[in-house]
Amino acid sequence: MPFPFYLQILGSGSAIPRNNKNHTSQLLVYNNKYFLIDCGEGTQHQLQKFKINFQRIDQIFISHLHGDHYLGLAGLISTMNLLGRVKPLQIYGPPGIKEVIDLHFSIAKARSAFEIQFISTQDKEKKLICEVKDVNVYSFPLKHKIPTTGFLFEAGSNWRKMIPEKLEKYEVPKHLRAGIAAGKDYTRENGEVIPNEELTLPPPEKRRYAFCSDTAYFESLSEKIGCSLNLMYHEATFIEEDKKSAKEKYHTTAAQAAKQALNTGAEKLLIGHLSNKYPNEELSLKEAREVFKETYIAEEGEKYEI
Amino acid sequence: MPFPFYLQILGSGSAIPRNNKNHTSQLLVYNNKYFLIDCGEGTQHQLQKFKINFQRIDQIFISHLHGDHYLGLAGLISTMNLLGRVKPLQIYGPPGIKEVIDLHFSIAKARSAFEIQFISTQDKEKKLICEVKDVNVYSFPLKHKIPTTGFLFEAGSNWRKMIPEKLEKYEVPKHLRAGIAAGKDYTRENGEVIPNEELTLPPPEKRRYAFCSDTAYFESLSEKIGCSLNLMYHEATFIEEDKKSAKEKYHTTAAQAAKQALNTGAEKLLIGHLSNKYPNEELSLKEAREVFKETYIAEEGEKYEI
Repeated sequence: MPFPFYLQILGSGSAIPRNNKNHTSQLLVYNNKYFLIDCGEGTQHQLQKFKINFQRIDQIFISHLHGDHYLGLAGLISTMNLLGRVKPLQIYGPPGIKEVIDLHFSIAKARSAFEIQFISTQDKEKKLICEVKDVNVYSFPLKHKIPTTGFLFEAGSNWRKMIPEKLEKYEVPKHLRAGIAAGKDYTRENGEVIPNEELTLPPPEKRRYAFCSDTAYFESLSEKIGCSLNLMYHEATFIEEDKKSAKEKYHTTAAQAAKQALNTGAEKLLIGHLSNKYPNEELSLKEAREVFKETYIAEEGEKYEI
Repeated sequence: MPFPFYLQILGSGSAIPRNNKNHTSQLLVYNNKYFLIDCGEGTQHQLQKFKINFQRIDQIFISHLHGDHYLGLAGLISTMNLLGRVKPLQIYGPPGIKEVIDLHFSIAKARSAFEIQFISTQDKEKKLICEVKDVNVYSFPLKHKIPTTGFLFEAGSNWRKMIPEKLEKYEVPKHLRAGIAAGKDYTRENGEVIPNEELTLPPPEKRRYAFCSDTAYFESLSEKIGCSLNLMYHEATFIEEDKKSAKEKYHTTAAQAAKQALNTGAEKLLIGHLSNKYPNEELSLKEAREVFKETYIAEEGEKYEI
């Protein structure tokens, strides 16, 4: 039975907030580990609204330094602090994010009671930036007005699945079984080596989610991500009618987002960050579904299994 | 008929946000001039929720640099910018506020299309900081952990009320009447001087609102404000039972806030910034009303005539 692995949308609006839409933020949960992705203004209110215990968040990933993707961070950290947090928090993002948080504390003549570790991302190539239990997080480059990365979350056990009959047949002692699950061969008392493949099956396939924040369309995205996905989020600020605007403003159309899902071999696509200029979201959804059927609007509060 | 003069509460919660409470922010309106007082995280969402055209705000006043009083400022300015604002914006507050906004733009490699003027406040003494049409704004010192000021808004016409019968009697020509309303004497053709007091009545009394942000109780507040008030807002984070906490944390109890209203000769008191630790607001309200009957809880969205 695999661990629960899901994405909960906290904010899915574009830069100009609307009444019913918040700025970008997402919570990713795997096996009770909480990861926050982007943290627009109001994220702490959304976390409270959805009754999420945000002290469980130990890693925050910021895609880029436009206000609608990070302006909730200082407030969230302040509240964590006021509520007595002591365990460290890791923040992954462009280098400027440290300056923002440092200035926030320095002008308040305050300091954080817990350690904040800043890990700078770069937007040149795909990179493994974080390994937590059974989750690997990679950043990958996007193409926006300022340095911007997406994040790929790959989750699942690395332990090989043992074959009980084989363990019995070769009389593998209990104390060696963890090593076998980790991939070791077994050497019997008579010196005979039983290769691991004889005793185990490969671990279940990892499940993968990619967050593609603000970006222009570019051909090599699937190559940058470098693997197939169970779920992809991609911004879709514009529709094809405004393709020119999308290009100029380094954003994507709904059809282009769908094309990226297709190219990447995603099972399912969520689109968000839709411009306020469109009267409703159906236009974007329809356009995307013509290219990639399994497209859905990222709905705030909703949980999406991965 | 005096111009409409009212306060609308946008956020009245304390530092740890609750589901139904936002961080401090208030809109003051006099004769279609909009003033924003404090700008906690989520203020732009509240402005939208209450359908307030926030491009009409030309002056923003920040009491101090704790996150729950200013963290919405960068986002609001960004949105004003995205929506095409060109007219200047004045921000009054502690010097650090300029650094915050400058850093926000510099890490986004962006600039504001409109001019932002920063006017530093100080917390040493009462000071006239802004004169707009018929509104004078003063800052006055409060006592908090970091430099903090309150703001006093004094609104009303400076024009004296002309007495029609007297203007007729002395045959004051039309083109001189603006001067008379402004307080000038009238010199007749024969050299006779008619003193202004003979021709006019004093302007209607100014109406006054004072915003007392986070502060400990201190005796000399009414003296610092230096005038009577039609409306006072005062924080009331604690109740008397927690008077010691209030003192330690440089906050006020509901009874103390009421005492300040009494001392200042206010007609009406609004209290807010109530701690989350109390199950409901009735405790605070009851305590304050025992000292000052005309006390009300500052309710988000509500408008209070001044």
